[in-house]
Amino acid sequence: MATEEIEVIPLEPDVDAGLVDELDELIDDRQQAEALAAIGHLHAADLALVMSHLPVTAAYQLFDWLPGDVASELLPELDDDYRGDLLEAQNTRRVSSLIDTLDTDDAADVLADLPEPLVAQILPGLEDEEELRELLEYGEETAGGLMEAEYVTVKPTQTVAEATEEVRRLAETVDPVYAVYVVDAADRLLGIVHLKTLLLSRNTTLIEQIMDRDYVFVGPHTDQEDVARLMERRDLNVLPVVDEEGELLGRITIDDVVDVIREEAEEDIHRMSGLTGDEELTASVWSICRGRLLWLAVGLIGAFLSALVIQQFEGVLEQAVVLAMFIPVVTAMAGNAGMQSSAIAVQGLASGELWSSDLNRRLGKELVVALLNGIPLGVGIGAVVFLLYQVGLFSLDSSAAMRLALTVSLALFTVIVLAATIGATVPLLLDRLGIDPALATGPFVTTSNDILGLIVYFAIAIVIFLG
Amino acid sequence: MATEEIEVIPLEPDVDAGLVDELDELIDDRQQAEALAAIGHLHAADLALVMSHLPVTAAYQLFDWLPGDVASELLPELDDDYRGDLLEAQNTRRVSSLIDTLDTDDAADVLADLPEPLVAQILPGLEDEEELRELLEYGEETAGGLMEAEYVTVKPTQTVAEATEEVRRLAETVDPVYAVYVVDAADRLLGIVHLKTLLLSRNTTLIEQIMDRDYVFVGPHTDQEDVARLMERRDLNVLPVVDEEGELLGRITIDDVVDVIREEAEEDIHRMSGLTGDEELTASVWSICRGRLLWLAVGLIGAFLSALVIQQFEGVLEQAVVLAMFIPVVTAMAGNAGMQSSAIAVQGLASGELWSSDLNRRLGKELVVALLNGIPLGVGIGAVVFLLYQVGLFSLDSSAAMRLALTVSLALFTVIVLAATIGATVPLLLDRLGIDPALATGPFVTTSNDILGLIVYFAIAIVIFLG
Repeated sequence: MATEEIEVIPLEPDVDAGLVDELDELIDDRQQAEALAAIGHLHAADLALVMSHLPVTAAYQLFDWLPGDVASELLPELDDDYRGDLLEAQNTRRVSSLIDTLDTDDAADVLADLPEPLVAQILPGLEDEEELRELLEYGEETAGGLMEAEYVTVKPTQTVAEATEEVRRLAETVDPVYAVYVVDAADRLLGIVHLKTLLLSRNTTLIEQIMDRDYVFVGPHTDQEDVARLMERRDLNVLPVVDEEGELLGRITIDDVVDVIREEAEEDIHRMSGLTGDEELTASVWSICRGRLLWLAVGLIGAFLSALVIQQFEGVLEQAVVLAMFIPVVTAMAGNAGMQSSAIAVQGLASGELWSSDLNRRLGKELVVALLNGIPLGVGIGAVVFLLYQVGLFSLDSSAAMRLALTVSLALFTVIVLAATIGATVPLLLDRLGIDPALATGPFVTTSNDILGLIVYFAIAIVIFLG
Repeated sequence: MATEEIEVIPLEPDVDAGLVDELDELIDDRQQAEALAAIGHLHAADLALVMSHLPVTAAYQLFDWLPGDVASELLPELDDDYRGDLLEAQNTRRVSSLIDTLDTDDAADVLADLPEPLVAQILPGLEDEEELRELLEYGEETAGGLMEAEYVTVKPTQTVAEATEEVRRLAETVDPVYAVYVVDAADRLLGIVHLKTLLLSRNTTLIEQIMDRDYVFVGPHTDQEDVARLMERRDLNVLPVVDEEGELLGRITIDDVVDVIREEAEEDIHRMSGLTGDEELTASVWSICRGRLLWLAVGLIGAFLSALVIQQFEGVLEQAVVLAMFIPVVTAMAGNAGMQSSAIAVQGLASGELWSSDLNRRLGKELVVALLNGIPLGVGIGAVVFLLYQVGLFSLDSSAAMRLALTVSLALFTVIVLAATIGATVPLLLDRLGIDPALATGPFVTTSNDILGLIVYFAIAIVIFLG
């Protein structure tokens, strides 16, 4: 490559609305060759992105046209449900032949999103039928669901030259090779030899002399989040999966874990935002509705409880309708302060950096922060309320205006402290109870903070403003 | 390893509050040997976790006691600010010798969090002074900030045997080796030879015959998020960084990118939750306050605008104080529906799956979903309001109760549709303007939805309930 040709590549070259529109037209005009030429330079992940932006019928047509190798590379990059629908629309023989070219971990993922009758029809004809049946038995979110059955094994009594030959023999199916696994006659894992060690050892050296016996591994039922955290914390790029008898079942590579980390982070954001299920951009309107309606309904019930709280204080409001003005101030600030505290706690728990045993220390810190933030905000809003009285916004006498300012000020301060306390406590308590703390944020914390905040506000109003 | 010894390792063994308490006591009693024995089996990441749970003085004491190799492995695992404070308390000579044992990417990260005068004092004495000065010039969140200067280079005319010898020579400093880089006399990158290719080639083969010329690379100023996305989408485990002249500057390994993905996801969660800055669990009370107060103040101003909206409708409220009851219903549901729509949009933009050119299509989908969800929720709350009238909760006549039910029902429906529209639109518009769309969620969307929702509610109330 000559110097003048070197240019830092643009990320995701040409993958934009322009390409999508051009492609859509070509497909509409049945210009197969031109359409394939337009996407010929794309990597599988970029092609998946383009597909997801095409109208569904155009995307299906394009997939029909794709050469087998391009289509099979594309499959693992598509959203789960989208891929399921796409393959259901294909003829079974093509689906089988596409799956046959995939690594077993990707093949199992693809099969897992197809309807059972179709899987039952396809499986018997597949090359890796046995391995796939085993992989499909593990939950999708476990080490077993992540692992692939492609890896290189050697015996401890083999030589480096023999092991290298084995890598060469399997070079096509096992990619990338990070290490070779040393197993006994019963396939029990004895040690690991990293590729670098293999490269740097003499051809005649015995594997048992160079194998690493102090390796980390997981069982097939380990949760994918624990797998990700382990590989992340130990900077591993590959991890063997071993059953209770010590038999090697598969390996998990870092690229799959990168996807897990992204997925888990998205899941947390979803839960915090009141989105159940894993809403994907390609999801159908119906599945989006299903995933959102439940939380909206729960939120509505919570909000209705707030309404009932206000109803209890209707007499107070009748005496001073000006108090209604600050209802959204109380609920919004309870929501904001609670969200800050709970987000930090939920995230700390998710990353393993915060333990449920940290409750007291965490709470202490949150309280101090809430006190320190509550004072300027409380004083500030009190001052603003009194100022607005001065400019004539309220039809109150000066004593009532002072009492209103004091009420709002004290209520805001109390609500911030209470909301921070609840926001910090609930996730840690839920974690102790074995419930996903991410559920605590979003609608739940918001609702309970609203209710408590309103009670506090009206109670203070009764004592200070009306009293 | 005999079968009976094999057991799936527990993740994070013994790293819990018990160990922290035991360690705290040992440190308190100045039992250095026992304290070091208690943590002797821990990996660096686990030790960092334990440190962050110790009182600060105990943690500093423990760090003083740590042998140099343990201390230097620990450094990259600590939170940035915490590490900065810890090292400032150490004597300069120890800090220098610890940094000298780190890979250049980690060393640059450590230096970046120290105060400038200290860096100026330490740098001249360091072994990799020159490389570090260069690395420090790149932003922490760029490819240059992520890359390390440790890699293996060979010339195209060298043989496989010579390249292998070069890997052997650098095996200590370059770990892991994924590939060797082929460069010309001016250090310009010509190609890449993966370790597997090296292993599988004959010793006498020339590097230029086996090198991969079609490789992906980035420039030193590429944003770390783009680097992460590229490596993730192409399943790369190492990526060369090259300057405009084509000169090889460094390499980015997958373990650093895994950290970036986690960091960026946490950053999104922070912004959505109204936490500016990167609040870490080890952060001081003051820095937490600073990071939260700004957003709370912005939220308060927004909420105060809602209060002013209600003030405008004080006359309406005086005629029917029962309308105050549903203020939190309107604001909460505006918040929930807006949060759902904006979270999906923000996340889609962050992952690159949603483009700002998708605005119309996205908005169309969100509108249909909002209509479909708004109908049952609107009808539902209307029915509940009328039911509560039947059981005698409201002191209204039956016509007024019907009108109240209709008002609340219509307002809720409208608010859900409006909030979803705003939630979906704002992030995409911000993205077009080059503003981080994550800023759109949390306080901002919530506040604007609250205000709009209240206006809609009172307008409907005037027409239907009072009209």
